[in-house]
Amino acid sequence: MGQYIYGIDLGGTTVKMGLFDNEGNIIDKWEIVTRKEDNGSQILPDIAASVQDKNSEKNIAIEEIEGIGIGVPGPVTEDGRVLKCANLGWGVLSVTDELRRLTGISKARAGNDANVAALGEQWRGGGRGFDSIVMVTLGTGIGGGIIQNGKILTGSNGAAGEIGHIKVNFNETATCGCGGHGCLEQYSSATAIMRHARELVTVTEEESYLRQFETEKITGKEIFDGYKAGDNLAKQVVKRFAEYLGIGLSHVTAVVDTQAFVIGGGVSKNGQAVIDVIREEYEKNVTLFALKGKEFRLAELGNDAGMYGAVRMVME
Amino acid sequence: MGQYIYGIDLGGTTVKMGLFDNEGNIIDKWEIVTRKEDNGSQILPDIAASVQDKNSEKNIAIEEIEGIGIGVPGPVTEDGRVLKCANLGWGVLSVTDELRRLTGISKARAGNDANVAALGEQWRGGGRGFDSIVMVTLGTGIGGGIIQNGKILTGSNGAAGEIGHIKVNFNETATCGCGGHGCLEQYSSATAIMRHARELVTVTEEESYLRQFETEKITGKEIFDGYKAGDNLAKQVVKRFAEYLGIGLSHVTAVVDTQAFVIGGGVSKNGQAVIDVIREEYEKNVTLFALKGKEFRLAELGNDAGMYGAVRMVME
Repeated sequence: MGQYIYGIDLGGTTVKMGLFDNEGNIIDKWEIVTRKEDNGSQILPDIAASVQDKNSEKNIAIEEIEGIGIGVPGPVTEDGRVLKCANLGWGVLSVTDELRRLTGISKARAGNDANVAALGEQWRGGGRGFDSIVMVTLGTGIGGGIIQNGKILTGSNGAAGEIGHIKVNFNETATCGCGGHGCLEQYSSATAIMRHARELVTVTEEESYLRQFETEKITGKEIFDGYKAGDNLAKQVVKRFAEYLGIGLSHVTAVVDTQAFVIGGGVSKNGQAVIDVIREEYEKNVTLFALKGKEFRLAELGNDAGMYGAVRMVME
Repeated sequence: MGQYIYGIDLGGTTVKMGLFDNEGNIIDKWEIVTRKEDNGSQILPDIAASVQDKNSEKNIAIEEIEGIGIGVPGPVTEDGRVLKCANLGWGVLSVTDELRRLTGISKARAGNDANVAALGEQWRGGGRGFDSIVMVTLGTGIGGGIIQNGKILTGSNGAAGEIGHIKVNFNETATCGCGGHGCLEQYSSATAIMRHARELVTVTEEESYLRQFETEKITGKEIFDGYKAGDNLAKQVVKRFAEYLGIGLSHVTAVVDTQAFVIGGGVSKNGQAVIDVIREEYEKNVTLFALKGKEFRLAELGNDAGMYGAVRMVME
């Protein structure tokens, strides 16, 4: 087994790059810009060039490298093909073939970024000790990743775990980013709770902890601080957030019967209160004994989860 | 590899038993009664005795038997343990250990009956040619089984694929068999559509194809015959059936991104019309391109699916 593994997390604005040893300990990490011009054709060559620079800097020979793994912000099939990645301007592209060709590293693995981050958390983060987790990332949207027996559940088109687009409200008229109506991420993403809180502050006159902030500066932190302090508006916001998430996660577990949910993304930085309220609503929506009492954990690796998961894919 | 495999489908009233060759061709099949008295303690001994009788009849030596597989009507973990099976009166029980001990066959495999039937259909039935399917059995309740890359997705407590208990209606006051409210099987099982049709016939005065039958004799066949003939009441029944199923299956695919849905159980005997109306409603509820255009197939093995799947578990 080669001594080094590269773990890459390709995002829409930056590429997070990590050099790891073959036991998964991080040696170095850095970032490069994601150049999206020209249909994203420079992205993989930029990554390869950065890997080559690092090899030179650290005096690493190509045969000392076990492999390279990458998380990509779009569906990726089990054989490492992207079918479409609108964010990056990519159409069909074999990411693994290209990475092999460009870097000269013979073992390359690719996965969807949310799935790869889930693998990272299961291996080294909040999901440690469980074989099977569902990772839920509450950020701008809602990302999901499902790990079964230590492996990513990819799905036939690489779209397994897209739980942000489970439809939870059939009366919604506002349109989700996906074109649908009533998707989970319209209610329980960081964006959604900020929007909801700002709306309530604007359209109601009720006294609230939240009113001490400029409306546009109310974020998840202010909402959860208010919630913990017993503020009524904040409680309404958190209640709706958790109710829809409880419904969505009850659907997920009826399908995969996971051991644990790991909650990540910006919203999860508000700590145990987030877990507690989601768990409470989840339990209201499950009746089968085998689906009750699931574990809930906070994610631990933050922005590094993708790099760790990318490395783990190479080690499998 | 031994020459013979036993495939068993344990139901609440009868046990379907099959003797197969090691390529999965059926040699013989028969049934015995499921004796539930005494907390179901006679069930596995009865099965073992029936296996021994068959071995004598066919002159099969124990070392010629590759293994025995069984589907059980309750959650079964990956290591073959039942945690609870109210139907049979069982508490925690290692079905595989018991079968090995009672039959002397060293390789035993057990799974949940719906999951095992799904494996049978994927291997030899309507799911042939796909690696990953979701099987939906529309009977008294709704059973589900998920096959990923040719293997059963079991879940941590053996409850993966329990899609009949996905909550699809949040305004329901009637109670589901599981104790919940608004579960998919309250709308889309064979029982549910019969109940709905009988209600409509009773509480409305509208002319209908369905009125030529005694109310209590209206079953899925009459409903779908009426539907195909353009009858308005039958169309209402089928529409609600398919709407909820379309919602539920859209949740399922956002989680596992399957290749194909295989529809089985009594309702599926009404043929292509069943598939067409479910597909139409499913497509309304998915927006991500990777989840659109899934294949829908009718199950083909009927009551034998469980025996085939049980055999397949042994072959893996």
